[in-house]
Amino acid sequence: MIYQSAQLDAMEQRYRAAFVNSLSGFKAANLVGSCDADGQYNLAIMSSVVHIGSHPPLLALVLRPDDAKQHSLQNILSQKHYTLNHVSEDIFKAAHQTAARYPKEISEFDAVGLDTQQLADFPAPFVKAAVVKLGMLLRDHKKLEINGTHLIIGEIVLACVPDSIIGDDGSVDIGAANTVTLSGLDSYYSTSRLARMPYAKP
Amino acid sequence: MIYQSAQLDAMEQRYRAAFVNSLSGFKAANLVGSCDADGQYNLAIMSSVVHIGSHPPLLALVLRPDDAKQHSLQNILSQKHYTLNHVSEDIFKAAHQTAARYPKEISEFDAVGLDTQQLADFPAPFVKAAVVKLGMLLRDHKKLEINGTHLIIGEIVLACVPDSIIGDDGSVDIGAANTVTLSGLDSYYSTSRLARMPYAKP
Repeated sequence: MIYQSAQLDAMEQRYRAAFVNSLSGFKAANLVGSCDADGQYNLAIMSSVVHIGSHPPLLALVLRPDDAKQHSLQNILSQKHYTLNHVSEDIFKAAHQTAARYPKEISEFDAVGLDTQQLADFPAPFVKAAVVKLGMLLRDHKKLEINGTHLIIGEIVLACVPDSIIGDDGSVDIGAANTVTLSGLDSYYSTSRLARMPYAKP
Repeated sequence: MIYQSAQLDAMEQRYRAAFVNSLSGFKAANLVGSCDADGQYNLAIMSSVVHIGSHPPLLALVLRPDDAKQHSLQNILSQKHYTLNHVSEDIFKAAHQTAARYPKEISEFDAVGLDTQQLADFPAPFVKAAVVKLGMLLRDHKKLEINGTHLIIGEIVLACVPDSIIGDDGSVDIGAANTVTLSGLDSYYSTSRLARMPYAKP
């Protein structure tokens, strides 16, 4: 069936949110770790991480200003350091629970039962159980006027990845790390590799 | 192993590209269809689609200016209309081949053997074999000064989705559509649903 703007606009709000959130395709599932000036930890699942470049190594996050992620946004903007932690099969239920609206004085690490980890004096907390852990430094912040969301661009200044899943060519086998992928607002998937494709030439 | 900025910077260029491209997690695999003012078609696989908002329904694309995707960028900026087509298991090899640097006068639809489709007088070409097809209208364009990439924000003005994969709550079962997911530069994966999770409350 074909839905055009008028039909999309007429959808009930939650129905439209579920529908539109499914349309981009599969999404990365990352836990964003941060802390405020008082050392209060925050952890939030996000599905909006996107690759911006390799040199320097840059990833962006899209954040809504008005939802349960506001503490993460405040922490990232004030402290500049945050972490991205891949969600794997053994922690996806706890990871999803971080989406609940906990008060600021509650650490989602404690609330959902995920242990913190410190790495190399990095000032934001990592998720101990995550197989792939990234330490990020805020490099740019743009408010997208079109709908008030925030684009947060960070540089990967620390990557903690087991040597056993790094290939000879530098590629990381995130399937072997049991990293999950997300669809829509709440569907979690495991993956099976179909193929690695050669560099495409005409 | 922990890699910090100095180690990341010292990596050989292609090794670093493969490594860093793996770190964001699983990515959406979409074919971007466009055409120029003369009606010349272009088709390019992209892994950088990210959800921006549901109302209005907005998706962003991150595009490098200097690679094989330059024809797509020119077409999107000049014609404003483009399409996003989910890559499914039966077309992922043809989809990957669109990454080759074909001359502008070659349509990648023809070069890789994917049929075009017109829908509802939309001015850009869809991929007939794609199960989920989106017609996009350019709404904003930002050049990211940090590395010269382009952020293209488009509104979904047409969504072609089979009724059979739309749930009662509006969610779309893109796993049932055999939509694939990508890791790094060249690894394609099928998915298996682990769970749908309930709305998280403290």
